[in-house]
Amino acid sequence: MSFAATVLTLYPEMFPGPLAASLSGRALEKGIWSLERVQIRDFAHDRHRSVDDTPAGGGAGMVLRPDVLAEAIDSTASEGDARPRILLSPRGRPMTQAFVRDLAKGPGAVLICGRFEGVDERVIEARGLTEVSIGDYILSGGELGAMVLLDAVVRLLPGVMGNQESGEAESFETGLLEHPQYTRPQHFEGRGIPEVLTSGDHGRVAAWRRAEAERITRKRRPDLYALYEAGHRPGKGES
Amino acid sequence: MSFAATVLTLYPEMFPGPLAASLSGRALEKGIWSLERVQIRDFAHDRHRSVDDTPAGGGAGMVLRPDVLAEAIDSTASEGDARPRILLSPRGRPMTQAFVRDLAKGPGAVLICGRFEGVDERVIEARGLTEVSIGDYILSGGELGAMVLLDAVVRLLPGVMGNQESGEAESFETGLLEHPQYTRPQHFEGRGIPEVLTSGDHGRVAAWRRAEAERITRKRRPDLYALYEAGHRPGKGES
Repeated sequence: MSFAATVLTLYPEMFPGPLAASLSGRALEKGIWSLERVQIRDFAHDRHRSVDDTPAGGGAGMVLRPDVLAEAIDSTASEGDARPRILLSPRGRPMTQAFVRDLAKGPGAVLICGRFEGVDERVIEARGLTEVSIGDYILSGGELGAMVLLDAVVRLLPGVMGNQESGEAESFETGLLEHPQYTRPQHFEGRGIPEVLTSGDHGRVAAWRRAEAERITRKRRPDLYALYEAGHRPGKGES
Repeated sequence: MSFAATVLTLYPEMFPGPLAASLSGRALEKGIWSLERVQIRDFAHDRHRSVDDTPAGGGAGMVLRPDVLAEAIDSTASEGDARPRILLSPRGRPMTQAFVRDLAKGPGAVLICGRFEGVDERVIEARGLTEVSIGDYILSGGELGAMVLLDAVVRLLPGVMGNQESGEAESFETGLLEHPQYTRPQHFEGRGIPEVLTSGDHGRVAAWRRAEAERITRKRRPDLYALYEAGHRPGKGES
């Protein structure tokens, strides 16, 4: 069964955009996933096709109306639709690789892209939207967040990645950042490849890579390293 | 002076893509920022235009060659070029709004989009690349990361956002997630707007919003709330 993505946006013409290329584009052509685009503005009530209004209590910006967005959601996701409804928002739970993996196992996702100052809180509650953030920064809208989420999910769908591209030791899948990589040429501007990597000794290579991954994670991301130490060391925790 | 972005990628046709719409698209048309696209493959040495090779030490995937990428970088960023050279990578420092703000004050950025298993470590060192991650998940390449970074930066450039869209109380700018927003209609499926927001009492509105922002941040992001408590309370830290 194909992963069914629906994107609600004021800029449907942005999609599939970058997702039409490379891995995700080939998977879209093969029907491994599908993409439905819904123009939120089609559900406006007035002849100016307004979707937003000023914030109650004052302040800058405009807020997406709850009634218009609710109708847009209802048009595509019926009550029996088991797909999670995700609002891309900097207020959301941070997206992690574990979240992406879970989503990839499900039937699909309804992705709602906000713009302006935000979305009326009542439609978030009434339609059970899960707020998800792709990172601690502000974008001009949720569209790029939806693309990032879809790209991350689609590459995990069965049949999308060949062996060549799989990489079992990828960052986050082991709880560590990835070790340094080297390839040809053997000499580049006076810099060589670490001797161990050309030794042909698979045990030494694996040990070096693990040590480098630990070193880099400890240095760059003490937050991730603490989780790794707590839960993923042999003989401890879930591993 | 305009913000000069250069993107090095194997998929130049992805750009400007979503960045051609909305805020960033209007700013691009106005010349507030510029976008140069460099096809890394143009710097391949052989007739098959190879840019990658197998990892030294074995393993899945392919690694971007250092010599090819170095030549691509040198073609666009001369020695006097003060723009930071950023490699989008899950191994990088997490992108924050503070990083985005700093970048927006500078002359531009050279953005390098990896694919495959990664980039040869020697070109990262030799060309002084800063690795930046947009979040703790794996994408099929750096292109969406580059778009996310550019969207975040461009909206902060002078002349891009009108007053209507500025929003001084946005998530992260205050160290807190944003308070809930409400707009018309007054009644939506039996749900009203909190009374304080229609009271006309600006002091009460501001106090309610601050309290809600604190409540939501404490609940959803204890990590951010701890930073806020440590550094941003009146009379303490940098504020």
